[in-house]
Amino acid sequence: MLLKKLKEDPAQYDGQLVELQGWVRTNRNSKKIGFIELNDGSTFSNTQIVYEDGLPNFAETSKITLGSAIGVKGTVVVTPEGKQPFEIHADQVEVLGLADHDYPLQKKRHSFEYMREIPHVRPRANTYYAIFRLRSVLSMAIHTFFQDRGFVYVHTPEITGNDAEGAGECFTVTTRKDDKYGDDFFSKHAQLTVSGQLHVEPFALTYRNVYTFGPTFRAENSNTTRHASEFWMIEPELAFADLGDDMDCIEEMIKYCINYCLEHASEEMAFFQKMIDKDCIDRVTQVANSHFKRMTYTEAIDHLEKAKDRFENKDIFWGMDLQSEHERYLCEQVVQGPVFLTDYPKDIKAFYMRVNEDGKTVAACDLLVPYVGELVGGSQREERYDVLVERMKEMGMETESLQWYLDLRRFGGCKHSGFGLGFDRMLMYLSGIQNIRDVQPYPRTPRNLVF
Amino acid sequence: MLLKKLKEDPAQYDGQLVELQGWVRTNRNSKKIGFIELNDGSTFSNTQIVYEDGLPNFAETSKITLGSAIGVKGTVVVTPEGKQPFEIHADQVEVLGLADHDYPLQKKRHSFEYMREIPHVRPRANTYYAIFRLRSVLSMAIHTFFQDRGFVYVHTPEITGNDAEGAGECFTVTTRKDDKYGDDFFSKHAQLTVSGQLHVEPFALTYRNVYTFGPTFRAENSNTTRHASEFWMIEPELAFADLGDDMDCIEEMIKYCINYCLEHASEEMAFFQKMIDKDCIDRVTQVANSHFKRMTYTEAIDHLEKAKDRFENKDIFWGMDLQSEHERYLCEQVVQGPVFLTDYPKDIKAFYMRVNEDGKTVAACDLLVPYVGELVGGSQREERYDVLVERMKEMGMETESLQWYLDLRRFGGCKHSGFGLGFDRMLMYLSGIQNIRDVQPYPRTPRNLVF
Repeated sequence: MLLKKLKEDPAQYDGQLVELQGWVRTNRNSKKIGFIELNDGSTFSNTQIVYEDGLPNFAETSKITLGSAIGVKGTVVVTPEGKQPFEIHADQVEVLGLADHDYPLQKKRHSFEYMREIPHVRPRANTYYAIFRLRSVLSMAIHTFFQDRGFVYVHTPEITGNDAEGAGECFTVTTRKDDKYGDDFFSKHAQLTVSGQLHVEPFALTYRNVYTFGPTFRAENSNTTRHASEFWMIEPELAFADLGDDMDCIEEMIKYCINYCLEHASEEMAFFQKMIDKDCIDRVTQVANSHFKRMTYTEAIDHLEKAKDRFENKDIFWGMDLQSEHERYLCEQVVQGPVFLTDYPKDIKAFYMRVNEDGKTVAACDLLVPYVGELVGGSQREERYDVLVERMKEMGMETESLQWYLDLRRFGGCKHSGFGLGFDRMLMYLSGIQNIRDVQPYPRTPRNLVF
Repeated sequence: MLLKKLKEDPAQYDGQLVELQGWVRTNRNSKKIGFIELNDGSTFSNTQIVYEDGLPNFAETSKITLGSAIGVKGTVVVTPEGKQPFEIHADQVEVLGLADHDYPLQKKRHSFEYMREIPHVRPRANTYYAIFRLRSVLSMAIHTFFQDRGFVYVHTPEITGNDAEGAGECFTVTTRKDDKYGDDFFSKHAQLTVSGQLHVEPFALTYRNVYTFGPTFRAENSNTTRHASEFWMIEPELAFADLGDDMDCIEEMIKYCINYCLEHASEEMAFFQKMIDKDCIDRVTQVANSHFKRMTYTEAIDHLEKAKDRFENKDIFWGMDLQSEHERYLCEQVVQGPVFLTDYPKDIKAFYMRVNEDGKTVAACDLLVPYVGELVGGSQREERYDVLVERMKEMGMETESLQWYLDLRRFGGCKHSGFGLGFDRMLMYLSGIQNIRDVQPYPRTPRNLVF
């Protein structure tokens, strides 16, 4: 029986004999009685197993080490006055797999750095145990949100032949040990995708509302707490939608995901609030209940200029790329809540974003939220064939390999918009965990590939 | 408004003015009246737009080409005697994006081969339009099945440093043009994963029930209709579960997915039944209602020996790898339904499968289903440290780089089992589509990388 089921309604099982399996989180005992905190993986909190010296293998049970797998047969005893709503009085404890004495998790706090060396064991430590379930819950939140609204999930490819996306440095995919890509597996140079957006647009021009949710890659040699070489992205794309519709969808999605996680990972969120970030539930609840403001980049620059003395980077000018400190000031101090910045200078944004009437800005938006800064980036896409070609030439891009992408504008094109949400960053935002290496099962970063 | 919503209850909208957007699937007309079949991506079937010569831009509307994007304002008219339950009488038709005259889809049947050259347009052709929605629906079926049962979704890595998995040829991931991997991005050789199983086992030994669902890769130079270089796999892993529990889970999952798709993609399944495979609904319904039989490999060999004259490969012996013709004979002729083959010779199976008492076979299972043969492969994992080390040595594997995997057996190990479902193959099974290149948005195969 799963402990999750038992916990849903312990009274129903009071006095009943149950069979459990799980792992020992603690085992303390005296000569006559012992207590095992058991976790079977189905819920965050442990369940207390009480065993007494009447147990045939009491001595063996007393010595069961932290991390061991055991089977228990025992009686459910509801404990209305206890810290936990029930405990199990064991009739039988079976050792299924002892943890050896070099088991890397002991009853003390281990550093995040230590934990990153043992990705095969750390999921059993509380912080990771909470985060990887939240990861699963947030994934389901995203799928449920989009599928309930009729969005079609598209598996855009991981291996791509488009060299021209221009969103960052790429990993080459090859079966060769040299650069004769003409003789390579695909008879041409192939690389790992940096974004599914270009590949998903044809599907938006078919199903109207679509989304991707899969791994993407960057070969950038950046050792920050927010960048990994492999990470999961969600990239929705909406046909017949302008930038305003896009922002409506982003806002609805973020709020939905927050509420879903608060409901479906309540024990985990309570743990983060207690141990990682004492404001995290308040912070995300506040965002879920806010109206997301909207402000143009130009207005934002005005605000930043007035306050420039407070920044490390004081060189504020129209056309600059905002840094994290600027973004956080805008949402935390100026707006005091989530805010969409819109209409960025075209020179600091991607080629596919729609050029505004002013000729200087594009219909882009970044969602800034207190505590992390940028969480989502989106834009209306340039649907005008000639304008798009012009823009690509301006940026020195060759158009030939993206002719198929351009052709979407000639084959029943229409206004459309989309956005990208970094899944790992959203998890950091929800949990308060500060390093992307601690929200991914097996983080990949420069010079770091464990298993 | 989405046509999906309108179709759910047309009577409710009878006589009302609605605004629609979508793409033109056909446009035929006389001097006084015209009919557009409109599809907005929200449902499989089209909706008829009727326009008359009172329309200010009647002449322009008459010339709207196949594939064009339009906006329509018009009145819902319920047509109880018509082929369709309602139609739209247009007051206004706006051209949002014309399809140029070289639009690659015309009103005739195009070959699959032709379509594979134009992955950016083919989703709009009926077969692909149906399959890519089914792909999304089946994805959600899988997530719903596992999440409803408390399984934790784990994002195992795409880039791995484990050279030892041994499940096929691998793609190298590099930022270099030579093989000096010590100086490479990760300071060692890195490759694309062939399976998430080894990486997900630690999570099963934490959360008990877990699953992966993500891309996997093979660099095999095989040009068959069933192999692609990039494909999505589902790899569940269950702790405290033996091979019997594993097969119970597989059977329940397959039945759930079939029923979910029949319910949530009913128009698409009806299309496949009509146009691709006249038995597909009956076939999968029958499987959903069957009890999946179980038969040992040794029994299977007996059956095959008795019938060997009917096979192309008549060399039937204990220890052989079964070919597709053998597998199909067993489920289609012998069992006449789905069957699990179990307890394969250890020499033809992977190192991590649990060795049976006989010392010759392993606790593995393959699910064979009529029409396709093998659909799922699973096994109980070897949880005995010494036996596992012995097995790896026998197979000439070095153990050092998999010491972490071995250590799982020393750190609270327990019996556990899991399986792998090839997502694309399941889609082929459901739809009757014969080539994996026609169920993937952008198929990657040897010498073939379009966009």
